[in-house]
Amino acid sequence: MTVLLRIDASARLNGSITREMADRFIDGWRKTDPNAKTLSRDVGREPPSIVSEASIRAGFTPPDQRTAEMNDALAESMTLIDELRQAHVLVIAAPLYNYGLPASLKAWIDQIVRPGETFSFDLKRGDFPIRSTLSGKSLVVLSSRGEFGFEPGGIRDGWNHLNPNLRTVATRLLGIAPDDIYEIASEYQEFGDERHDRSREIALRDASELGSRLAAARRSPCSNEKVPA
Amino acid sequence: MTVLLRIDASARLNGSITREMADRFIDGWRKTDPNAKTLSRDVGREPPSIVSEASIRAGFTPPDQRTAEMNDALAESMTLIDELRQAHVLVIAAPLYNYGLPASLKAWIDQIVRPGETFSFDLKRGDFPIRSTLSGKSLVVLSSRGEFGFEPGGIRDGWNHLNPNLRTVATRLLGIAPDDIYEIASEYQEFGDERHDRSREIALRDASELGSRLAAARRSPCSNEKVPA
Repeated sequence: MTVLLRIDASARLNGSITREMADRFIDGWRKTDPNAKTLSRDVGREPPSIVSEASIRAGFTPPDQRTAEMNDALAESMTLIDELRQAHVLVIAAPLYNYGLPASLKAWIDQIVRPGETFSFDLKRGDFPIRSTLSGKSLVVLSSRGEFGFEPGGIRDGWNHLNPNLRTVATRLLGIAPDDIYEIASEYQEFGDERHDRSREIALRDASELGSRLAAARRSPCSNEKVPA
Repeated sequence: MTVLLRIDASARLNGSITREMADRFIDGWRKTDPNAKTLSRDVGREPPSIVSEASIRAGFTPPDQRTAEMNDALAESMTLIDELRQAHVLVIAAPLYNYGLPASLKAWIDQIVRPGETFSFDLKRGDFPIRSTLSGKSLVVLSSRGEFGFEPGGIRDGWNHLNPNLRTVATRLLGIAPDDIYEIASEYQEFGDERHDRSREIALRDASELGSRLAAARRSPCSNEKVPA
Protein backbone atom coordinates (compact mmCIF):
# COMPACT_ATOMS: atom_id res chain seq x y z
CA MET A 1 0.00 0.00 0.00
CA THR A 2 1.37 3.36 -1.02
CA VAL A 3 1.70 6.03 1.65
CA LEU A 4 1.49 9.70 0.74
CA LEU A 5 2.75 12.26 3.25
CA ARG A 6 1.02 15.56 2.65
CA ILE A 7 2.72 18.65 4.12
CA ASP A 8 0.65 21.83 3.99
CA ALA A 9 2.71 24.97 4.59
CA SER A 10 0.26 27.73 3.72
CA ALA A 11 -0.59 29.92 6.69
CA ARG A 12 -3.97 30.39 5.06
CA LEU A 13 -6.53 27.80 6.01
CA ASN A 14 -9.20 29.37 3.78
CA GLY A 15 -8.76 30.20 0.14
CA SER A 16 -5.29 28.66 -0.05
CA ILE A 17 -4.38 27.69 -3.59
CA THR A 18 -1.69 25.24 -2.51
CA ARG A 19 -4.11 23.42 -0.22
CA GLU A 20 -6.52 23.12 -3.15
CA MET A 21 -3.70 21.82 -5.36
CA ALA A 22 -2.84 19.18 -2.75
CA ASP A 23 -6.52 18.16 -2.54
CA ARG A 24 -6.57 17.70 -6.30
CA PHE A 25 -3.33 15.72 -6.32
CA ILE A 26 -4.60 13.34 -3.64
CA ASP A 27 -7.99 13.00 -5.35
CA GLY A 28 -6.24 12.25 -8.64
CA TRP A 29 -4.09 9.64 -6.93
CA ARG A 30 -7.10 7.96 -5.33
CA LYS A 31 -8.95 7.72 -8.62
CA THR A 32 -6.22 5.36 -9.80
CA ASP A 33 -5.26 3.88 -6.43
CA PRO A 34 -8.16 4.09 -3.95
CA ASN A 35 -6.24 2.21 -1.28
CA ALA A 36 -3.43 4.71 -0.90
CA LYS A 37 -2.98 5.95 2.64
CA THR A 38 -2.50 9.66 3.29
CA LEU A 39 -0.68 11.06 6.29
CA SER A 40 -1.25 14.75 6.78
CA ARG A 41 1.06 17.18 8.55
CA ASP A 42 -0.27 20.72 8.56
CA VAL A 43 2.75 22.90 9.38
CA GLY A 44 0.90 26.02 8.22
CA ARG A 45 -1.73 25.56 10.90
CA GLU A 46 0.68 24.29 13.55
CA PRO A 47 4.28 25.24 12.80
CA PRO A 48 6.90 22.80 14.13
CA SER A 49 9.25 24.10 16.77
CA ILE A 50 12.31 25.90 15.48
CA VAL A 51 15.44 23.96 16.42
CA SER A 52 17.13 25.22 19.57
CA GLU A 53 20.54 24.78 21.13
CA ALA A 54 19.04 22.10 23.38
CA SER A 55 17.48 20.10 20.54
CA ILE A 56 20.62 20.34 18.40
CA ARG A 57 22.79 19.14 21.29
CA ALA A 58 20.37 16.31 22.00
CA GLY A 59 20.36 15.28 18.34
CA PHE A 60 24.14 15.05 18.27
CA THR A 61 24.26 12.99 21.48
CA PRO A 62 24.30 9.20 20.89
CA PRO A 63 20.85 7.74 21.77
CA ASP A 64 22.15 5.64 24.66
CA GLN A 65 23.68 8.71 26.29
CA ARG A 66 20.63 10.96 26.08
CA THR A 67 19.00 12.28 29.23
CA ALA A 68 15.25 12.39 29.70
CA GLU A 69 15.35 16.12 28.88
CA MET A 70 17.19 15.37 25.66
CA ASN A 71 14.61 12.80 24.65
CA ASP A 72 11.88 15.34 25.37
CA ALA A 73 13.70 17.87 23.19
CA LEU A 74 13.68 15.34 20.34
CA ALA A 75 10.14 13.99 20.70
CA GLU A 76 8.64 16.26 18.08
CA SER A 77 11.45 15.51 15.65
CA MET A 78 10.93 11.76 16.13
CA THR A 79 7.23 12.05 15.31
CA LEU A 80 7.93 13.99 12.13
CA ILE A 81 10.71 11.61 11.07
CA ASP A 82 8.45 8.62 11.68
CA GLU A 83 5.87 10.08 9.29
CA LEU A 84 8.54 10.77 6.70
CA ARG A 85 9.93 7.24 6.95
CA GLN A 86 6.53 5.73 6.22
CA ALA A 87 6.00 7.84 3.12
CA HIS A 88 6.62 6.69 -0.45
CA VAL A 89 5.57 10.05 -1.84
CA LEU A 90 6.17 13.38 -0.13
CA VAL A 91 3.64 15.99 -1.25
CA ILE A 92 4.70 19.49 -0.22
CA ALA A 93 2.09 22.19 -0.74
CA ALA A 94 3.87 25.49 -0.14
CA PRO A 95 3.30 29.07 -1.25
CA LEU A 96 6.28 31.27 -2.09
CA TYR A 97 6.63 33.73 0.82
CA ASN A 98 8.91 36.68 0.19
CA TYR A 99 10.70 34.69 -2.50
CA GLY A 100 11.49 31.77 -0.22
CA LEU A 101 10.13 28.91 1.85
CA PRO A 102 7.47 29.55 4.46
CA ALA A 103 9.30 29.57 7.81
CA SER A 104 7.02 26.75 8.97
CA LEU A 105 8.26 24.49 6.18
CA LYS A 106 11.90 25.27 6.96
CA ALA A 107 11.20 24.50 10.61
CA TRP A 108 9.88 21.09 9.48
CA ILE A 109 12.97 20.45 7.34
CA ASP A 110 15.28 21.33 10.22
CA GLN A 111 13.37 18.88 12.44
CA ILE A 112 13.55 15.92 10.02
CA VAL A 113 17.20 16.18 8.96
CA ARG A 114 18.92 14.44 11.85
CA PRO A 115 22.22 12.60 12.28
CA GLY A 116 21.69 8.92 13.01
CA GLU A 117 18.06 9.16 11.94
CA THR A 118 17.89 10.44 8.38
CA PHE A 119 21.57 10.84 7.55
CA SER A 120 24.88 9.35 8.52
CA PHE A 121 28.10 11.29 8.83
CA ASP A 122 31.53 9.80 8.26
CA LEU A 123 34.71 11.74 7.59
CA LYS A 124 36.16 8.62 5.94
CA ARG A 125 33.99 9.53 2.97
CA GLY A 126 36.25 12.49 2.29
CA ASP A 127 34.75 15.75 1.10
CA PHE A 128 31.19 14.37 1.12
CA PRO A 129 30.78 12.95 4.64
CA ILE A 130 26.99 13.25 4.74
CA ARG A 131 24.85 10.49 3.28
CA SER A 132 21.08 10.24 3.52
CA THR A 133 19.80 7.00 5.02
CA LEU A 134 16.50 7.44 3.17
CA SER A 135 15.95 6.33 -0.39
CA GLY A 136 13.37 5.61 -3.05
CA LYS A 137 10.92 8.37 -2.20
CA SER A 138 9.34 10.78 -4.66
CA LEU A 139 8.75 14.48 -4.04
CA VAL A 140 5.87 16.53 -5.40
CA VAL A 141 6.10 20.31 -4.89
CA LEU A 142 2.83 22.18 -5.32
CA SER A 143 3.44 25.90 -5.09
CA SER A 144 1.65 29.20 -5.52
CA ARG A 145 3.29 32.54 -6.30
CA GLY A 146 1.90 36.04 -6.17
CA GLU A 147 3.92 37.08 -9.18
CA PHE A 148 5.22 35.43 -12.35
CA GLY A 149 8.24 35.19 -14.63
CA PHE A 150 10.47 33.07 -12.37
CA GLU A 151 11.44 30.69 -15.18
CA PRO A 152 14.87 30.87 -16.86
CA GLY A 153 14.91 34.05 -18.93
CA GLY A 154 11.74 35.33 -17.22
CA ILE A 155 11.44 38.78 -15.69
CA ARG A 156 12.01 37.30 -12.21
CA ASP A 157 14.58 34.67 -13.13
CA GLY A 158 16.55 33.85 -9.97
CA TRP A 159 14.03 35.33 -7.52
CA ASN A 160 12.33 32.01 -6.63
CA HIS A 161 14.32 30.35 -3.86
CA LEU A 162 11.65 27.86 -2.83
CA ASN A 163 11.91 25.23 -5.54
CA PRO A 164 15.73 25.23 -5.80
CA ASN A 165 16.04 25.00 -2.00
CA LEU A 166 13.63 22.04 -1.84
CA ARG A 167 15.44 20.30 -4.70
CA THR A 168 18.77 20.56 -2.86
CA VAL A 169 17.25 19.30 0.39
CA ALA A 170 15.54 16.43 -1.44
CA THR A 171 18.52 15.25 -3.47
CA ARG A 172 21.27 15.92 -0.93
CA LEU A 173 19.56 15.12 2.36
CA LEU A 174 16.48 12.98 1.71
CA GLY A 175 17.89 10.52 -0.84
CA ILE A 176 15.42 11.56 -3.53
CA ALA A 177 16.58 11.19 -7.14
CA PRO A 178 16.29 14.33 -9.31
CA ASP A 179 14.03 12.38 -11.71
CA ASP A 180 11.65 11.65 -8.85
CA ILE A 181 10.89 15.32 -8.21
CA TYR A 182 7.75 16.85 -9.74
CA GLU A 183 6.84 20.53 -9.55
CA ILE A 184 3.65 22.43 -10.35
CA ALA A 185 2.97 26.10 -9.63
CA SER A 186 0.12 28.56 -9.87
CA GLU A 187 1.19 32.16 -10.48
CA TYR A 188 -0.09 35.76 -10.80
CA GLN A 189 -2.14 35.62 -7.58
CA GLU A 190 -1.54 39.23 -6.55
CA PHE A 191 -2.70 40.50 -9.96
CA GLY A 192 -6.12 38.88 -9.50
CA ASP A 193 -6.71 38.98 -13.25
CA GLU A 194 -7.53 36.44 -15.92
CA ARG A 195 -3.87 35.42 -16.10
CA HIS A 196 -4.24 34.27 -12.51
CA ASP A 197 -7.54 32.49 -13.16
CA ARG A 198 -5.95 30.62 -16.05
CA SER A 199 -2.72 29.80 -14.18
CA ARG A 200 -4.64 28.49 -11.18
CA GLU A 201 -6.97 26.43 -13.34
CA ILE A 202 -4.05 24.81 -15.19
CA ALA A 203 -2.18 24.16 -11.93
CA LEU A 204 -5.22 22.45 -10.37
CA ARG A 205 -5.79 20.32 -13.46
CA ASP A 206 -2.08 19.41 -13.64
CA ALA A 207 -2.04 18.47 -9.95
CA SER A 208 -4.96 16.09 -10.45
CA GLU A 209 -3.43 14.55 -13.56
CA LEU A 210 -0.02 14.17 -11.93
CA GLY A 211 -1.62 12.35 -9.00
CA SER A 212 -3.32 9.87 -11.33
CA ARG A 213 -0.23 9.35 -13.47
CA LEU A 214 2.15 8.81 -10.55
CA ALA A 215 -0.31 6.37 -8.97
CA ALA A 216 -0.51 4.45 -12.25
CA ALA A 217 3.28 4.39 -12.59
CA ARG A 218 3.63 3.01 -9.06
CA ARG A 219 1.15 0.24 -9.83
CA SER A 220 3.27 -0.93 -12.76
CA PRO A 221 6.75 -0.50 -11.35
CA CYS A 222 8.27 -2.66 -14.10
CA SER A 223 7.29 -0.23 -16.82
CA ASN A 224 10.38 1.87 -16.19
CA GLU A 225 8.41 4.74 -17.60
CA LYS A 226 9.33 8.09 -16.11
CA VAL A 227 6.42 10.40 -15.60
CA PRO A 228 7.15 13.86 -16.99
CA ALA A 229 6.11 16.65 -14.61
CA MET B 1 24.70 58.67 14.56
CA THR B 2 24.83 55.42 12.71
CA VAL B 3 22.52 52.64 13.84
CA LEU B 4 23.48 49.01 13.31
CA LEU B 5 20.77 46.37 13.60
CA ARG B 6 22.34 43.06 14.50
CA ILE B 7 20.25 39.94 13.82
CA ASP B 8 21.63 36.71 15.29
CA ALA B 9 20.03 33.61 13.80
CA SER B 10 22.21 30.83 15.17
CA ALA B 11 20.34 28.48 17.47
CA ARG B 12 23.64 28.00 19.25
CA LEU B 13 24.30 30.46 22.04
CA ASN B 14 27.69 28.94 22.85
CA GLY B 15 30.43 28.31 20.33
CA SER B 16 28.54 29.93 17.48
CA ILE B 17 30.86 31.12 14.72
CA THR B 18 28.36 33.57 13.28
CA ARG B 19 27.86 35.22 16.68
CA GLU B 20 31.62 35.60 16.95
CA MET B 21 31.76 37.07 13.44
CA ALA B 22 29.08 39.60 14.38
CA ASP B 23 31.01 40.52 17.54
CA ARG B 24 34.09 41.17 15.44
CA PHE B 25 32.19 43.21 12.88
CA ILE B 26 30.66 45.42 15.59
CA ASP B 27 34.01 45.76 17.36
CA GLY B 28 35.65 46.73 14.08
CA TRP B 29 32.96 49.30 13.43
CA ARG B 30 33.33 50.81 16.89
CA LYS B 31 37.08 51.17 16.50
CA THR B 32 36.39 53.66 13.72
CA ASP B 33 33.07 54.99 14.95
CA PRO B 34 32.73 54.59 18.73
CA ASN B 35 29.39 56.38 18.79
CA ALA B 36 27.53 53.93 16.60
CA LYS B 37 24.40 52.55 18.22
CA THR B 38 23.71 48.82 18.03
CA LEU B 39 20.25 47.33 18.20
CA SER B 40 20.28 43.60 18.78
CA ARG B 41 17.56 41.14 17.82
CA ASP B 42 18.42 37.58 18.72
CA VAL B 43 16.05 35.44 16.64
CA GLY B 44 18.15 32.34 17.32
CA ARG B 45 17.48 32.61 21.03
CA GLU B 46 13.89 33.79 20.66
CA PRO B 47 12.44 32.98 17.24
CA PRO B 48 9.78 35.41 16.01
CA SER B 49 6.30 34.04 15.54
CA ILE B 50 5.62 32.41 12.22
CA VAL B 51 3.00 34.37 10.30
CA SER B 52 -0.52 33.00 10.70
CA GLU B 53 -3.77 33.42 8.83
CA ALA B 54 -4.82 35.96 11.48
CA SER B 55 -1.65 38.06 11.22
CA ILE B 56 -1.72 38.01 7.41
CA ARG B 57 -5.35 39.11 7.37
CA ALA B 58 -4.60 41.86 9.90
CA GLY B 59 -1.65 43.07 7.83
CA PHE B 60 -3.78 43.40 4.72
CA THR B 61 -6.53 45.30 6.59
CA PRO B 62 -6.17 49.11 6.40
CA PRO B 63 -4.94 50.44 9.79
CA ASP B 64 -8.12 52.42 10.51
CA GLN B 65 -10.25 49.33 10.05
CA ARG B 66 -8.25 47.00 12.31
CA THR B 67 -9.85 45.47 15.39
CA ALA B 68 -8.02 45.24 18.72
CA GLU B 69 -7.32 41.57 17.96
CA MET B 70 -5.78 42.54 14.64
CA ASN B 71 -3.51 45.09 16.30
CA ASP B 72 -2.47 42.44 18.80
CA ALA B 73 -1.66 40.06 15.94
CA LEU B 74 0.59 42.74 14.44
CA ALA B 75 2.32 43.99 17.59
CA GLU B 76 5.39 41.80 17.19
CA SER B 77 5.73 42.73 13.53
CA MET B 78 5.53 46.45 14.42
CA THR B 79 8.35 46.08 16.95
CA LEU B 80 10.59 44.33 14.44
CA ILE B 81 9.79 46.83 11.68
CA ASP B 82 10.52 49.73 14.02
CA GLU B 83 14.00 48.32 14.66
CA LEU B 84 14.58 47.83 10.96
CA ARG B 85 13.47 51.39 10.14
CA GLN B 86 16.02 52.83 12.57
CA ALA B 87 18.90 50.85 11.09
CA HIS B 88 21.41 52.20 8.60
CA VAL B 89 23.22 48.89 8.48
CA LEU B 90 21.57 45.50 8.82
CA VAL B 91 24.02 42.88 10.10
CA ILE B 92 22.66 39.36 9.65
CA ALA B 93 24.66 36.62 11.35
CA ALA B 94 23.23 33.34 10.10
CA PRO B 95 24.55 29.81 9.76
CA LEU B 96 23.56 27.72 6.74
CA TYR B 97 21.06 25.14 8.01
CA ASN B 98 20.32 22.28 5.65
CA TYR B 99 21.42 24.45 2.72
CA GLY B 100 19.04 27.28 3.55
CA LEU B 101 18.07 30.00 5.98
CA PRO B 102 17.49 29.17 9.63
CA ALA B 103 13.72 29.03 10.07
CA SER B 104 14.02 31.73 12.73
CA LEU B 105 15.50 34.16 10.22
CA LYS B 106 12.80 33.43 7.67
CA ALA B 107 10.21 34.00 10.39
CA TRP B 108 11.81 37.43 10.96
CA ILE B 109 11.74 38.26 7.23
CA ASP B 110 8.08 37.27 6.98
CA GLN B 111 7.32 39.57 9.94
CA ILE B 112 9.09 42.66 8.55
CA VAL B 113 7.87 42.53 4.94
CA ARG B 114 4.47 44.17 5.31
CA PRO B 115 2.16 46.07 2.95
CA GLY B 116 1.79 49.71 3.99
CA GLU B 117 4.77 49.42 6.31
CA THR B 118 7.80 48.31 4.33
CA PHE B 119 6.36 48.04 0.83
CA SER B 120 3.61 49.56 -1.24
CA PHE B 121 1.54 47.69 -3.78
CA ASP B 122 -0.01 49.30 -6.82
CA LEU B 123 -1.27 47.48 -9.89
CA LYS B 124 -0.86 50.70 -11.89
CA ARG B 125 2.86 49.89 -11.88
CA GLY B 126 2.16 47.01 -14.26
CA ASP B 127 4.09 43.79 -13.89
CA PHE B 128 6.11 45.07 -10.88
CA PRO B 129 3.43 46.30 -8.46
CA ILE B 130 5.57 45.90 -5.32
CA ARG B 131 7.92 48.69 -4.29
CA SER B 132 9.90 48.85 -1.07
CA THR B 133 9.34 51.97 1.00
CA LEU B 134 12.76 51.53 2.61
CA SER B 135 15.96 52.81 1.04
CA GLY B 136 19.60 53.58 1.65
CA LYS B 137 20.40 50.73 4.00
CA SER B 138 23.37 48.39 3.75
CA LEU B 139 23.30 44.65 4.41
CA VAL B 140 26.12 42.60 5.86
CA VAL B 141 25.67 38.81 5.78
CA LEU B 142 27.97 36.87 8.12
CA SER B 143 27.50 33.16 7.58
CA SER B 144 28.98 29.85 8.62
CA ARG B 145 28.76 26.59 6.67
CA GLY B 146 29.55 23.07 7.72
CA GLU B 147 30.85 22.21 4.28
CA PHE B 148 32.65 24.05 1.47
CA GLY B 149 32.74 24.49 -2.30
CA PHE B 150 29.56 26.54 -2.71
CA GLU B 151 31.22 29.09 -5.01
CA PRO B 152 30.61 29.08 -8.79
CA GLY B 153 32.36 26.01 -10.16
CA GLY B 154 32.81 24.57 -6.65
CA ILE B 155 31.83 21.03 -5.70
CA ARG B 156 28.64 22.35 -4.08
CA ASP B 157 27.83 25.09 -6.56
CA GLY B 158 24.09 25.79 -6.32
CA TRP B 159 23.60 24.14 -2.91
CA ASN B 160 23.77 27.36 -0.85
CA HIS B 161 20.32 28.93 -0.80
CA LEU B 162 20.96 31.32 2.08
CA ASN B 163 22.96 34.08 0.44
CA PRO B 164 20.96 34.18 -2.82
CA ASN B 165 17.69 34.24 -0.88
CA LEU B 166 18.88 37.12 1.32
CA ARG B 167 20.10 39.04 -1.72
CA THR B 168 16.69 38.79 -3.38
CA VAL B 169 14.89 39.84 -0.19
CA ALA B 170 17.30 42.76 0.28
CA THR B 171 17.20 44.10 -3.26
CA ARG B 172 13.55 43.38 -4.07
CA LEU B 173 11.84 43.97 -0.74
CA LEU B 174 14.11 46.08 1.49
CA GLY B 175 15.30 48.70 -1.01
CA ILE B 176 18.95 47.72 -0.60
CA ALA B 177 21.21 48.30 -3.62
CA PRO B 178 23.24 45.26 -4.78
CA ASP B 179 26.45 47.26 -4.23
CA ASP B 180 25.48 47.79 -0.59
CA ILE B 181 25.48 44.07 0.22
CA TYR B 182 28.59 42.54 1.82
CA GLU B 183 29.04 38.83 2.48
CA ILE B 184 31.59 36.90 4.53
CA ALA B 185 31.50 33.17 5.32
CA SER B 186 33.40 30.66 7.40
CA GLU B 187 33.38 27.12 5.98
CA TYR B 188 34.47 23.51 6.68
CA GLN B 189 33.03 23.44 10.22
CA GLU B 190 31.94 19.80 10.15
CA PHE B 191 35.41 18.68 9.07
CA GLY B 192 36.99 20.17 12.19
CA ASP B 193 40.38 20.26 10.50
CA GLU B 194 42.95 22.91 9.72
CA ARG B 195 40.96 24.02 6.69
CA HIS B 196 38.24 24.97 9.15
CA ASP B 197 40.62 26.72 11.52
CA ARG B 198 41.99 28.76 8.65
CA SER B 199 38.59 29.57 7.16
CA ARG B 200 37.22 30.67 10.51
CA GLU B 201 40.27 32.78 11.25
CA ILE B 202 40.05 34.57 7.90
CA ALA B 203 36.30 35.10 8.30
CA LEU B 204 36.75 36.65 11.74
CA ARG B 205 39.52 38.93 10.53
CA ASP B 206 37.52 39.93 7.45
CA ALA B 207 34.47 40.68 9.60
CA SER B 208 36.49 43.02 11.80
CA GLU B 209 38.10 44.76 8.82
CA LEU B 210 34.80 45.13 7.01
CA GLY B 211 33.29 46.76 10.09
CA SER B 212 36.10 49.31 10.25
CA ARG B 213 36.03 50.02 6.53
CA LEU B 214 32.28 50.46 6.31
CA ALA B 215 32.34 52.74 9.34
CA ALA B 216 35.09 54.84 7.71
CA ALA B 217 33.17 55.00 4.42
CA ARG B 218 30.05 56.20 6.23
CA ARG B 219 32.02 58.94 7.96
CA SER B 220 33.17 60.34 4.63
CA PRO B 221 30.02 59.91 2.60
CA CYS B 222 31.29 62.27 -0.14
CA SER B 223 34.14 59.95 -1.01
CA ASN B 224 31.86 57.90 -3.31
CA GLU B 225 34.24 55.09 -2.68
CA LYS B 226 32.63 51.68 -2.74
CA VAL B 227 33.96 49.26 -0.18
CA PRO B 228 34.74 45.91 -1.80
CA ALA B 229 33.48 42.94 0.23
